[in-house]
Amino acid sequence: MASSISKRAPTKNLMLFSGRAHPVLAQEVADLLQIDLVPTTAYDFANGEIYVRFEESVRGCDAFIMQSHAQPINDAIMEQLLMIDALKRASAKRITVILPFYGYARQDKKHLGREPISARLMADLFLASGADRLMTVDLHTAQIQGFFDGPVDHLLAMPILTRYVKKKYGKKPLAVVSPDAGRIKVAESWASALGEAPLAFIHKTRDETKPNETKANRVVGEVEGRVCILVDDLIDTGGTIVQAAEALMADGAEDVVIVATHAVFSGPAVDRLKNSTACEVIVTNTLPLSDDQRFDKLTVLSIAPLLAQATAAVFEDGSVTSLFKN
Amino acid sequence: MASSISKRAPTKNLMLFSGRAHPVLAQEVADLLQIDLVPTTAYDFANGEIYVRFEESVRGCDAFIMQSHAQPINDAIMEQLLMIDALKRASAKRITVILPFYGYARQDKKHLGREPISARLMADLFLASGADRLMTVDLHTAQIQGFFDGPVDHLLAMPILTRYVKKKYGKKPLAVVSPDAGRIKVAESWASALGEAPLAFIHKTRDETKPNETKANRVVGEVEGRVCILVDDLIDTGGTIVQAAEALMADGAEDVVIVATHAVFSGPAVDRLKNSTACEVIVTNTLPLSDDQRFDKLTVLSIAPLLAQATAAVFEDGSVTSLFKN
Amino acid sequence: MASSISKRAPTKNLMLFSGRAHPVLAQEVADLLQIDLVPTTAYDFANGEIYVRFEESVRGCDAFIMQSHAQPINDAIMEQLLMIDALKRASAKRITVILPFYGYARQDKKHLGREPISARLMADLFLASGADRLMTVDLHTAQIQGFFDGPVDHLLAMPILTRYVKKKYGKKPLAVVSPDAGRIKVAESWASALGEAPLAFIHKTRDETKPNETKANRVVGEVEGRVCILVDDLIDTGGTIVQAAEALMADGAEDVVIVATHAVFSGPAVDRLKNSTACEVIVTNTLPLSDDQRFDKLTVLSIAPLLAQATAAVFEDGSVTSLFKN
Amino acid sequence: MASSISKRAPTKNLMLFSGRAHPVLAQEVADLLQIDLVPTTAYDFANGEIYVRFEESVRGCDAFIMQSHAQPINDAIMEQLLMIDALKRASAKRITVILPFYGYARQDKKHLGREPISARLMADLFLASGADRLMTVDLHTAQIQGFFDGPVDHLLAMPILTRYVKKKYGKKPLAVVSPDAGRIKVAESWASALGEAPLAFIHKTRDETKPNETKANRVVGEVEGRVCILVDDLIDTGGTIVQAAEALMADGAEDVVIVATHAVFSGPAVDRLKNSTACEVIVTNTLPLSDDQRFDKLTVLSIAPLLAQATAAVFEDGSVTSLFKN
Amino acid sequence: MASSISKRAPTKNLMLFSGRAHPVLAQEVADLLQIDLVPTTAYDFANGEIYVRFEESVRGCDAFIMQSHAQPINDAIMEQLLMIDALKRASAKRITVILPFYGYARQDKKHLGREPISARLMADLFLASGADRLMTVDLHTAQIQGFFDGPVDHLLAMPILTRYVKKKYGKKPLAVVSPDAGRIKVAESWASALGEAPLAFIHKTRDETKPNETKANRVVGEVEGRVCILVDDLIDTGGTIVQAAEALMADGAEDVVIVATHAVFSGPAVDRLKNSTACEVIVTNTLPLSDDQRFDKLTVLSIAPLLAQATAAVFEDGSVTSLFKN
Amino acid sequence: MASSISKRAPTKNLMLFSGRAHPVLAQEVADLLQIDLVPTTAYDFANGEIYVRFEESVRGCDAFIMQSHAQPINDAIMEQLLMIDALKRASAKRITVILPFYGYARQDKKHLGREPISARLMADLFLASGADRLMTVDLHTAQIQGFFDGPVDHLLAMPILTRYVKKKYGKKPLAVVSPDAGRIKVAESWASALGEAPLAFIHKTRDETKPNETKANRVVGEVEGRVCILVDDLIDTGGTIVQAAEALMADGAEDVVIVATHAVFSGPAVDRLKNSTACEVIVTNTLPLSDDQRFDKLTVLSIAPLLAQATAAVFEDGSVTSLFKN
Repeated sequence: MASSISKRAPTKNLMLFSGRAHPVLAQEVADLLQIDLVPTTAYDFANGEIYVRFEESVRGCDAFIMQSHAQPINDAIMEQLLMIDALKRASAKRITVILPFYGYARQDKKHLGREPISARLMADLFLASGADRLMTVDLHTAQIQGFFDGPVDHLLAMPILTRYVKKKYGKKPLAVVSPDAGRIKVAESWASALGEAPLAFIHKTRDETKPNETKANRVVGEVEGRVCILVDDLIDTGGTIVQAAEALMADGAEDVVIVATHAVFSGPAVDRLKNSTACEVIVTNTLPLSDDQRFDKLTVLSIAPLLAQATAAVFEDGSVTSLFKN
Repeated sequence: MASSISKRAPTKNLMLFSGRAHPVLAQEVADLLQIDLVPTTAYDFANGEIYVRFEESVRGCDAFIMQSHAQPINDAIMEQLLMIDALKRASAKRITVILPFYGYARQDKKHLGREPISARLMADLFLASGADRLMTVDLHTAQIQGFFDGPVDHLLAMPILTRYVKKKYGKKPLAVVSPDAGRIKVAESWASALGEAPLAFIHKTRDETKPNETKANRVVGEVEGRVCILVDDLIDTGGTIVQAAEALMADGAEDVVIVATHAVFSGPAVDRLKNSTACEVIVTNTLPLSDDQRFDKLTVLSIAPLLAQATAAVFEDGSVTSLFKN
Repeated sequence: MASSISKRAPTKNLMLFSGRAHPVLAQEVADLLQIDLVPTTAYDFANGEIYVRFEESVRGCDAFIMQSHAQPINDAIMEQLLMIDALKRASAKRITVILPFYGYARQDKKHLGREPISARLMADLFLASGADRLMTVDLHTAQIQGFFDGPVDHLLAMPILTRYVKKKYGKKPLAVVSPDAGRIKVAESWASALGEAPLAFIHKTRDETKPNETKANRVVGEVEGRVCILVDDLIDTGGTIVQAAEALMADGAEDVVIVATHAVFSGPAVDRLKNSTACEVIVTNTLPLSDDQRFDKLTVLSIAPLLAQATAAVFEDGSVTSLFKN
Repeated sequence: MASSISKRAPTKNLMLFSGRAHPVLAQEVADLLQIDLVPTTAYDFANGEIYVRFEESVRGCDAFIMQSHAQPINDAIMEQLLMIDALKRASAKRITVILPFYGYARQDKKHLGREPISARLMADLFLASGADRLMTVDLHTAQIQGFFDGPVDHLLAMPILTRYVKKKYGKKPLAVVSPDAGRIKVAESWASALGEAPLAFIHKTRDETKPNETKANRVVGEVEGRVCILVDDLIDTGGTIVQAAEALMADGAEDVVIVATHAVFSGPAVDRLKNSTACEVIVTNTLPLSDDQRFDKLTVLSIAPLLAQATAAVFEDGSVTSLFKN
Repeated sequence: MASSISKRAPTKNLMLFSGRAHPVLAQEVADLLQIDLVPTTAYDFANGEIYVRFEESVRGCDAFIMQSHAQPINDAIMEQLLMIDALKRASAKRITVILPFYGYARQDKKHLGREPISARLMADLFLASGADRLMTVDLHTAQIQGFFDGPVDHLLAMPILTRYVKKKYGKKPLAVVSPDAGRIKVAESWASALGEAPLAFIHKTRDETKPNETKANRVVGEVEGRVCILVDDLIDTGGTIVQAAEALMADGAEDVVIVATHAVFSGPAVDRLKNSTACEVIVTNTLPLSDDQRFDKLTVLSIAPLLAQATAAVFEDGSVTSLFKN
Repeated sequence: MASSISKRAPTKNLMLFSGRAHPVLAQEVADLLQIDLVPTTAYDFANGEIYVRFEESVRGCDAFIMQSHAQPINDAIMEQLLMIDALKRASAKRITVILPFYGYARQDKKHLGREPISARLMADLFLASGADRLMTVDLHTAQIQGFFDGPVDHLLAMPILTRYVKKKYGKKPLAVVSPDAGRIKVAESWASALGEAPLAFIHKTRDETKPNETKANRVVGEVEGRVCILVDDLIDTGGTIVQAAEALMADGAEDVVIVATHAVFSGPAVDRLKNSTACEVIVTNTLPLSDDQRFDKLTVLSIAPLLAQATAAVFEDGSVTSLFKN
């Protein structure tokens, strides 16, 4: 008798789990991968504590837990942490956390003293609960990759968005505009992807000629007569971007198209966008949108194919880098 | 010139911080310690992300962050984690987390496979964010102390509660009753504190004589003619404990007094308690109670003196153990 | 020439290792798995330091190290820690620690201040030495699962024990009795498994009528005329359980059957049990029993099939949860 | 006899250590603090391994180890890591690492797949060797603060630089220019500090009218007739910034003043700057400059007062945040 | 009212704890420090599990836990780990582990494959249980210092031993002899301390002239007519060193003096030493010796003054290095 | 549809990476394994910061990163750390660090107070950057294995070297000599491998007869008329070993052969060796040698077959221990 049992290496199993924040997107990814989501019990106790349990054995699986950090955002994050803990204790082999929208990403540094660096805290919480790897889309700043001590697959929605924009607006004279000074680098990539379109940005400043008013939006760069592609990573309350659109029209822009990956759409966002001077608002479905949040000039492109491709590549140890090339 | 600057060891500074979950209790503790709470900015961004910032320098302080895990519970926990991260990055010397009510404590083991051990996850999250030590009151099970890798000061509300009960009901024949089989050990301590009162518990079982009904509450132990002190750590929806009170009255109890440390009071709890057969419901203020949650036969005892004493003892390196002795 | 060598994923190897504490049980498990134990050199140096070495290559294996924490208990634990360290340094792929009896489990919380939480320390020591996962049987409290930062397979001997009890005593009127107030929850599961038998427990108390005596064992619950199944997780010196048996007989029990998973059997245990009023003592072989420790009314059921099944399930990434269902 | 020795808390000792990369700056800080640098033996073994030893007892001290990551940069970093290890093993109480220039800060994200995030690796190496806290000046991106799991004091040289610029050029019409699209946020702070001066940046692009040439520097924003303050965090080879200066002059700037915190000055930098169209080049002494690296229109402002103030504030648990206010 | 309580930094408290392995030495150190040992309850449960509890508050103290790893060695180690865990959880400020004899130090590398590195495992266990720092005497190899991730104070008994040897034998012609090839470096220090005495060592080899015998002890170096100081770190069973003494006498040594720091004295050691050709055996009291283990030509020097001095120096942040100078 | 994608376990991929320190050796190993090195971009930025990137997907591979710590040694180490970080973030499955020569190995303990233990720091840096396992050749002391918290494959060059020496010098009377007292254990293994040749060592001492001279090299052991095999782990500046050779010739040695694994060859080493009394100098190619560093009596044996065999064994989970047997 030998002193070991030998057995052919088992088949690897990809299992896809979804929290309750954005099940439609998870289902769409599952469909593309031609699997079912793992049946999962999840509910809130009377006092708001979350309970989760997986209905199938997960031992040894290659687990992908998808949760978009939609509102109520702290519930979404906590539910995902609990799911990771449950997977770790149930002996999943590897746990990949999929964050179509990474919550708290905007607090990625101390703006003042005695603040948290919330985006780093999130990475620490995922690590502490048992995550081996993160997959996410269009981080607020790319440096957040370095907050997690392990592999981070940072997917870019830009090819999906530029493909659409090029097709629809590519024949007109374009300008790419950043709504504030901090994100012009991204606008530069867009300018390059759209055939070296000129760049501009909005400089928020006190107008020296009107000392009593607080801030003016000064357009820096040449936009007159051009269709302005106003690019941001996310739209939260929409205030900044809608004002930017107005400033562009005031400076003689032909038209303004608002583009953003993450449709956070808080508070007055929908009304502002609906009533804005922009002719179209283009987003992806990294976050769920209720029917109330949809309106005529809104276009929603699906991120699911990108997530499905990346998930398959990670599972099969293929290259994710190649997904970024158009 | 010497190669070091020497300076008298600085005075130690105790600073007390409060999240937004239960500021009244924190203020009460601060008053007892004769200090102000550290002025703190805390608000929610439009999409629900929490922002916190301390308005005073905290460098080198001995920090105590109090947050009770009241509803909305995940917001309360996340706010506290963000406050810890901010303190760690602002060079607080030592961070003690005060949890008058420790959220998720009931999920302290896997009841079934593929569940999280949520109470351990909480300890891991506090550790990952930078907590050095925990202080908490009446954990659901004492073993949770072992979930945190560091000192845990586990305070007991029992002396506060028994003092009141003894004074009010001590002259009558008493029985101490546990509402379920899992918490009789605690009832035993109560029985001993109340002069070796007899013990009983409620055994939930199928009644063999009524095969179609699901569960009956069978009283195990002698309660007839006695005032039953029905003891639990917390009251959530109140279902179990109110049924227990009914079973006791049905078995001939003279009267029933419900006692619990944590007044979670979710959903139908207040109505159930108000309309129950119990003559009095006694809780502490580890959790905030709105005016709607108060009713005639409810007595709320303050936990603040216990927290203040323990905080002072930790700060001064005194003994916390001695607080537990009556 | 390619820049990598590809090779079909190798066969996985299960290897089973045993310390010197309870080799008979390990051999029984190995036989059920149809493998040999890995040949291991282990001896004590003159001053008591333990030396271990494996006689076969273990590189890349799926290792299971079984050691029951029998007396001398600290030697058993240290030997297992040394074996884990050796496996880690010899590149075992995954290390599962099998603890049929988990030492120091009773010290699972601070009863008083300034004590260790020894059961947590054990989990920390196993983690520090390199363990990836624990497998154990009938922990003193289920919360100990949460002391280890990784998967814990908590096996239950109850099905093995209840099957035997039901067959032998199932036709008589039964009562399930807990020897103390802290373990009635377990008795409740037994009561349910034995067809909703009534529950009772022993309440240690000062008898108010005999002020000079220290403690009396008061039976709480109805036991008259019934065969009492007196259930505990372990029998150490046997004092408590034998006195409980006496109290039950004094209260009119028809007969008493003592059942426990772990036969620690220290000091006077064997004599006490032999001479007790119980008609049968039923245990498993999670701990070794010498010939001196066996006696007529003792029945020892084997835990080996449960351990073998669980080991195979872990190795093959099957479900362990399903083992718990009768 | 008591069971403890009591003694008044000892005086705290600040000790300042310097590696061999930039001793002049360390000495300047020491002088401002009115202490000597701790005498330290440091030399290279024949094969380039570094040896360090402190010549005084450091037990219990509050240690500050200053090393600027000057060339040869990997030697500078390794020497600092060895000093930290030595302090940790010699029982320093707290170790603050002072990095006037943080090496590898530019590799703060993955630009392509399969790259390191070198700036995070540096933070990990400092942590692994025993650092408790970092102090640094003008990080390439502020997010790097979040790479270290502990307090980071991020000092800003801007007040030192703007004070000088305002005094010398404040009466002329100014524009603040960023040499590339990624750093306009910093330029925006400058614009605000210089009285809401207009902003511009250089957009590197293919010139559609000259298809055979690779890249043109297009000025975005209004600079004609203005003294352009061209602001960057560091000057390495000087290529980008010197071309930017040329583009500004070509667009009608009145004059160009180059300002940067870190004078890396590699390879052709000095020649390029000397011969550039800029009228002045202003840097700080976070990095050492040899005599060959100094030239007529170069102005070097000292960072030592800022480092000395911050060191004193950290030692005395004062606020560092307040140093940032002009 | 201020937002902090200020208080003069408290007096620091040194507290000295002893396990049950060698209380006499701990008491001797306490006496030299003029304190009492902290009253500690420690006993074994019936099944050998150890229980410990401190009888005084230890919150905030500077704790020193002394335990020599005497037989039964695994009990001694486990007791010390439990004491450390208890101190950590009771909020000791700093925990220094004093190991007059460091158990398992001889297994400091893998001699063969698939062995533990037990000395590293010990360091890991101390770290995992909560030790901040180690203090130990004459490690088997100095590299063990590097096994612990923190400060290690490695005290040397050599000055105590050489002072005695010089006084008694200093006038005769001496040779310093190492009993085996692996420890000649230590003998070299001795030779230097004894005025450049010549060195020799025992080379265990097969004697080519007597092919049937296994091993011969060949003396390498000049010992004729000299008093040989035969130096080792410890004496376990005494076999090697007694044979070395015989080989030296056979080679014409005038006399042999055996010197070792640690008197492990296992099995036949005492008989062998008593009957050996050595004229004196000199050891320290790092390990306890029973009356049976004492004999006429044995001299025991006390290590307590060295431990007391080092403890005081660590407590007062003085230099320990200076203790090593004669 | 199932809730998982099953797929046959993928083929495992061995990938071999080389830093820029000693590419010839890496290529030789690759050739023996019949693979290409993974194409890697590596260069220095102008200020000396190193950039690395792998040109092929490495996701899921079994990575081996070879870098010998040749001069400039800190660059070699930092480059390897950056490569490890890049592999970790690019999802390599397992990272084995191959160190033909382990830098800083000589600083393996504190010789004096307030020094680093540099060899431990190196292990910590490799661990912090993401290494899972080390493979190295002839460590300065075997205890360094214990500095790394994971598997270390410690390969021995001795069989390669002794095979050559035996063949060439085996018929003459030999002696094995250690150049200093600290490495005689290794010489003893050599003596045994060379048929129980006699042992000697060089004792550096003050010669009492020449009080004004500092140190003399005294030969301890019998070398007259023998070919002395002077064995060390490395030759740095060559001073010690060349003086040892002279002392041996002065004591009547027939000839001296210098043997060492690592040819560090710093500063005057080559001249000293060339002009020494030794008749042959034998080393391996663990470190690169320039043409200037080669000379007539130098023999270089290749370590590549040993590294290739060990790499293949680790990849295939075979035994590395068996490689050590002749």
